[in-house]
Amino acid sequence: MSAQATAYTMAEKLSAPPRRIRLGIVGGAGGFIGPVHALAARMDNRYELVAGALSSRPDVSKEAGKAWFLPPDRVYGDYREMARAEAGRPDGIEAVAITTPNHLHYDAAKAFLDAGIHVICDKPLTTTLDDALLLVEQARRTGLCFFVTHGFAAYPMIREARARVADGRLGTVRLVHVEFVMDWLTDPIDLMGDRHAAWRTDPATSGAGGAIADIGTHAYHLARFVSGQEVTGLSAALHTMVPGRRLDDNGHLLLEFENGAKGTMIVTQVAPGNECGLRIRVYGDKAGLEWRQDDADHLRFSEQGKPVQIIGRGEAGLSADAQRMTRVPRGHPEGYLEAFANIYSEIAAALWGKISGTAVPHPVACATVEDGAIGIAFIEAALRSSRQRGEWVDPRLPSVDGSKP
Amino acid sequence: MSAQATAYTMAEKLSAPPRRIRLGIVGGAGGFIGPVHALAARMDNRYELVAGALSSRPDVSKEAGKAWFLPPDRVYGDYREMARAEAGRPDGIEAVAITTPNHLHYDAAKAFLDAGIHVICDKPLTTTLDDALLLVEQARRTGLCFFVTHGFAAYPMIREARARVADGRLGTVRLVHVEFVMDWLTDPIDLMGDRHAAWRTDPATSGAGGAIADIGTHAYHLARFVSGQEVTGLSAALHTMVPGRRLDDNGHLLLEFENGAKGTMIVTQVAPGNECGLRIRVYGDKAGLEWRQDDADHLRFSEQGKPVQIIGRGEAGLSADAQRMTRVPRGHPEGYLEAFANIYSEIAAALWGKISGTAVPHPVACATVEDGAIGIAFIEAALRSSRQRGEWVDPRLPSVDGSKP
Amino acid sequence: MSAQATAYTMAEKLSAPPRRIRLGIVGGAGGFIGPVHALAARMDNRYELVAGALSSRPDVSKEAGKAWFLPPDRVYGDYREMARAEAGRPDGIEAVAITTPNHLHYDAAKAFLDAGIHVICDKPLTTTLDDALLLVEQARRTGLCFFVTHGFAAYPMIREARARVADGRLGTVRLVHVEFVMDWLTDPIDLMGDRHAAWRTDPATSGAGGAIADIGTHAYHLARFVSGQEVTGLSAALHTMVPGRRLDDNGHLLLEFENGAKGTMIVTQVAPGNECGLRIRVYGDKAGLEWRQDDADHLRFSEQGKPVQIIGRGEAGLSADAQRMTRVPRGHPEGYLEAFANIYSEIAAALWGKISGTAVPHPVACATVEDGAIGIAFIEAALRSSRQRGEWVDPRLPSVDGSKP
Amino acid sequence: MSAQATAYTMAEKLSAPPRRIRLGIVGGAGGFIGPVHALAARMDNRYELVAGALSSRPDVSKEAGKAWFLPPDRVYGDYREMARAEAGRPDGIEAVAITTPNHLHYDAAKAFLDAGIHVICDKPLTTTLDDALLLVEQARRTGLCFFVTHGFAAYPMIREARARVADGRLGTVRLVHVEFVMDWLTDPIDLMGDRHAAWRTDPATSGAGGAIADIGTHAYHLARFVSGQEVTGLSAALHTMVPGRRLDDNGHLLLEFENGAKGTMIVTQVAPGNECGLRIRVYGDKAGLEWRQDDADHLRFSEQGKPVQIIGRGEAGLSADAQRMTRVPRGHPEGYLEAFANIYSEIAAALWGKISGTAVPHPVACATVEDGAIGIAFIEAALRSSRQRGEWVDPRLPSVDGSKP
Repeated sequence: MSAQATAYTMAEKLSAPPRRIRLGIVGGAGGFIGPVHALAARMDNRYELVAGALSSRPDVSKEAGKAWFLPPDRVYGDYREMARAEAGRPDGIEAVAITTPNHLHYDAAKAFLDAGIHVICDKPLTTTLDDALLLVEQARRTGLCFFVTHGFAAYPMIREARARVADGRLGTVRLVHVEFVMDWLTDPIDLMGDRHAAWRTDPATSGAGGAIADIGTHAYHLARFVSGQEVTGLSAALHTMVPGRRLDDNGHLLLEFENGAKGTMIVTQVAPGNECGLRIRVYGDKAGLEWRQDDADHLRFSEQGKPVQIIGRGEAGLSADAQRMTRVPRGHPEGYLEAFANIYSEIAAALWGKISGTAVPHPVACATVEDGAIGIAFIEAALRSSRQRGEWVDPRLPSVDGSKP
Repeated sequence: MSAQATAYTMAEKLSAPPRRIRLGIVGGAGGFIGPVHALAARMDNRYELVAGALSSRPDVSKEAGKAWFLPPDRVYGDYREMARAEAGRPDGIEAVAITTPNHLHYDAAKAFLDAGIHVICDKPLTTTLDDALLLVEQARRTGLCFFVTHGFAAYPMIREARARVADGRLGTVRLVHVEFVMDWLTDPIDLMGDRHAAWRTDPATSGAGGAIADIGTHAYHLARFVSGQEVTGLSAALHTMVPGRRLDDNGHLLLEFENGAKGTMIVTQVAPGNECGLRIRVYGDKAGLEWRQDDADHLRFSEQGKPVQIIGRGEAGLSADAQRMTRVPRGHPEGYLEAFANIYSEIAAALWGKISGTAVPHPVACATVEDGAIGIAFIEAALRSSRQRGEWVDPRLPSVDGSKP
Repeated sequence: MSAQATAYTMAEKLSAPPRRIRLGIVGGAGGFIGPVHALAARMDNRYELVAGALSSRPDVSKEAGKAWFLPPDRVYGDYREMARAEAGRPDGIEAVAITTPNHLHYDAAKAFLDAGIHVICDKPLTTTLDDALLLVEQARRTGLCFFVTHGFAAYPMIREARARVADGRLGTVRLVHVEFVMDWLTDPIDLMGDRHAAWRTDPATSGAGGAIADIGTHAYHLARFVSGQEVTGLSAALHTMVPGRRLDDNGHLLLEFENGAKGTMIVTQVAPGNECGLRIRVYGDKAGLEWRQDDADHLRFSEQGKPVQIIGRGEAGLSADAQRMTRVPRGHPEGYLEAFANIYSEIAAALWGKISGTAVPHPVACATVEDGAIGIAFIEAALRSSRQRGEWVDPRLPSVDGSKP
Repeated sequence: MSAQATAYTMAEKLSAPPRRIRLGIVGGAGGFIGPVHALAARMDNRYELVAGALSSRPDVSKEAGKAWFLPPDRVYGDYREMARAEAGRPDGIEAVAITTPNHLHYDAAKAFLDAGIHVICDKPLTTTLDDALLLVEQARRTGLCFFVTHGFAAYPMIREARARVADGRLGTVRLVHVEFVMDWLTDPIDLMGDRHAAWRTDPATSGAGGAIADIGTHAYHLARFVSGQEVTGLSAALHTMVPGRRLDDNGHLLLEFENGAKGTMIVTQVAPGNECGLRIRVYGDKAGLEWRQDDADHLRFSEQGKPVQIIGRGEAGLSADAQRMTRVPRGHPEGYLEAFANIYSEIAAALWGKISGTAVPHPVACATVEDGAIGIAFIEAALRSSRQRGEWVDPRLPSVDGSKP
């Protein structure tokens, strides 16, 4: 009768551990994404952040540790030291969030896996596919959890979109269009001292991909996640629009999916007037859907020949997955930080299952180290295709059964 | 050069206390707003929630205390007991969040003020104007902080709207239109067992106002807050659209402001297809603006004779107040919980100033106990006008200089 | 199977006369609305415009007649002369469009009725209710057709909205909100030589109402038309926001409808950033709908507890009335001129029925002289209520059975 | 001071011929686009439609001629007969509108050019590039006007977009994205008797291209028109999504422009939930713009680092070209038919210039026969690239200087 789901609080819907999980963090001082991880972990009270190597400069790390209210003896100047020390404490961290620039992901992740600590790593997973495959192998071998933070895939209405594809309401998927359109690198701010821009456009810290790595991997994961299809072929044209910039800041791709569906991807950082324009459209032979980050709480859903429906977060009739990923009633907007917190809270369920040896009472759909590696394979495939004037390449991981390593 | 503000994290913009403030909570188990308060206090890590009377039923309070990871000895079955006990501890709470149904606000607030503890209280402040005025008086007398959680007024783009009115960019304000349009009480769910609906439509727990109290006070505060003008006259028509409902679920009001501006207010809970449709429009003789909660990160701003501008949260050139109220860059949507957290984080600055005897380095614009009382006076004025067939009444507080008690 | 209605052209849906109806026009040179009438009459090829008194200045009329390609001997300097001359020709006009400023409507309409010529008159019908009632009486007595051009009521999706209320899909109507929000008179352009603004703000040419007449009558007609309910009470606050202006440029009204529904109306010409913001919302106990002129081809429709639907012009399943009022397929926007042409084409069916003595094969829903008089009664009621500080008044016509004279 | 342009009527802005131009039409009975041409020619009263071969079936033509009120002796069963007969009359048509299915365009156009009659032809110009080039040659040789009806390029805000690119406000154009997204062929309605769908998916009547011809040529023209750049390379993937369909119903293209800009094109008829989703985005190094047909009266314009502006049709400060293409004030929506009428009215100026031997007092920007041929070259290039697995091809006309034949 009510349009409102009755269980408001996430605690009533997404299984929570009986105690908070002890979390550490690598990176965080001075960046954008480190504080996002910390806030996301804090939002639903399923973690306590108790240790950190907040900067590669020990003094900066110490100073930030104070501002973050961390115990001084658990603020480290080096992530290797942190991994060893925490592994040796009875109350040591159970999981670590890696939020550094890309080039440090591999080494940091390896250090914590070596220390037996579960890993939550920002994207892109590594700067080379070789490194990514090593992490996949190590995670499998150790049995430790390893998640990659594709936060956009945890928006409730993205989960709803995925559920509607999966349950057949779209029929056979024919078309997948994804775009991530930004303007923040339109001017050469990377060459003029903006620290966020500088490391993202420097091959030494970002890897070989620019926009294709920074936002392309998000778009790629989203396309796979919502469509439920692996990409089997891509043709890419990557560009560096700003003179002097060292990495691509724009890319146009054609996609082919395993079921025969076709698609496109646009990623750009040089389109004036676009804030963070992530958008996905999926069309099947029965219905279509569209989601845009700038109206994140709604999903446009259209059965062929019937009126367009605007599906709202929190309304009755949504999938269990979408319902789990929400905190407040319809019309009270949830945003980017809530989506990011969703992955932390969902991962908490998985971690607790592993820690306690119990089953998680619902699926955990967060991106894994395998998804992370698929993202790196995508970057390399796109770069290769673009160098070869758009030749179609298969972006799947080597030695793949399905498309998993 | 960049459209992006460079200081991403709130910590770089909104002054934070050097340690977390010790917070307690009254209410929270089973409601919607209690967990919102807790999450909001947690979001920016400026509070530690260490005590609670989470329910008026002691066993429910105890059980919820476990789920919230509170120290068992600081989970109370009664808020009076909590006030006394916490006041007696050296590590006792410094502030309390009151999140019960309306009828308990007064008594709980009084208990904590009596105990020398700062108060953060949900709206509406009380169920009678007499009670509200007593709280105003007590807060003034004790010198304790007393804030009322009008979270919508802490959306960054509401702060920006207010700044643009205040700095004269609209010219003389002529028109103020505010509406809060919902559908969740279209059906008689209050009569059919929905607990959230039941207490809000019961005079014993809600007070004499229904929609006019539950959402009207928000709309009223927003109109005053953005326009910078007190309301000097109102003509109200309140209605109960659902047969059997005991309080108003719809209201239409005409408003007059102290500077001569005119306005309207629509509040309803019975408009199918509307989630949480809060919207404000202010028009001056030079420019106008419009904000809608369903696009909370943007403000429509129009100078007469020039193209409409869409002002985005996080972009360059915004007011200092709007900049302080934000965490993530443009286009990464922030929503209701962030707005609610904004008031907690802003209040933290005020509380720390009081605790430490130091000046707060920026204005604190959160609603105070006086604003809360003005809201109660508004409810009573609207009820009176409506009973008298829309006769114009002055909703200002008695013995007012300006409109403050 | 297709989402597209198969009959594209209006000729396949709205009955057309076997020959074009001979039309004359009064006014048109120099104004905005005269050319709109002419274009609207021409659009669907159901009229031939063959005579005109295009201006009260004979030389201007002659000059304009050339530009409009009218036969020189049928371009008149005076509408009374035109009525007499055309009535005396075997090929004389069968209907006349009256498009002058308001103060001439009565006299011109009377002249053509006297001459036995059907009348299509712009709104507001007259400048006084007495005049309006005389025209109602004369139209009834003569049996001539008399329509008033409320073009907004002929938008296809307004017709669809009306059909959905009428067929009970909304249940009992509880709320009706209508607003007409413009900015073009924000500055005192009427005092600075703008001819369009000047006559509309001059009591001698506009009548006693300003905004309440110019756009309020449109909003009022729309509210009645869509809701299917007469207004039985109103409380009005009209304002003149621009110093020196002689008529109201802003109004806020509370409304009561015959079935007990409540509503509001906002009309303004002084809200910067608003072009021609006509919007109507109707909420019943089962469903609600919303229409905005700035998205005229769509209707937001919401059954309580179900997802919002976006109903598009031209899609399958719409009411017969909405289907008749359309020319091109879904997604090819139709606008204001098409809506205006709809009334001309619908009126053509009525005129041909009268001329030929045959039945019109479908309802004709255009506003009649009675609707026009109801609009004048509304203006007078609003002015009266506003003068009496918002006292509730009954805006219905005198000697009413239902609310028709 | 006013946000409103003061010249409302098109006649005050776009030069009109001193008498109506005599127009004939080929096609029109039973189709969608024929009546659109007729209505568009009629809208601004610059043509009189006096002759037609409304169908290839003489009896259907005769019958339709009656309904269209054409003189019976000028309703022809055959366009060749019509061309000869009209050329022989002193009051014969001066121009002809060709609105048949694609396969007849060439032959009909040639017949009228042979007869010395100016041609206005629907798109795509022909079904083969050879035919298109013959028409280009004949038009040049005869000196007759030959326009192709790309109506979307005559939306006022498209003209404004083009003007803003041309005057340098975007800086150097870097990116051009155009999409035309429809759903009407999602189901195999072409195989089930829908006549509009059937001829468009039949190579015998449509030519070798399906969606790429029907809507791709519009998108392509728009990209060239707004960007002011010719396309020098394209990589295409065309698809037939509906089993049994004989032509492409979907296409994804990468584009390269002569100045180095890059772009994408999506054209589809199989995306459920999309009516007629034409959209173009152009980004330069200084600013960007976006236009969507579903909000045709507005243009989103963004200077890098400044707030997004919503530019409205009819407001002050627009380019002369945008101002000429408009009839009614801001906020009174104009749509598809007005855009189509714009090309007819603009062409009327060009025709009158030719007829009278006088200069046209403003540029005429309608698509010419050369643009039509460029569209056919585009279709062939896209088909060729798609067959060759997306190999980049140069779509420019053969023997091109610049890209004009």
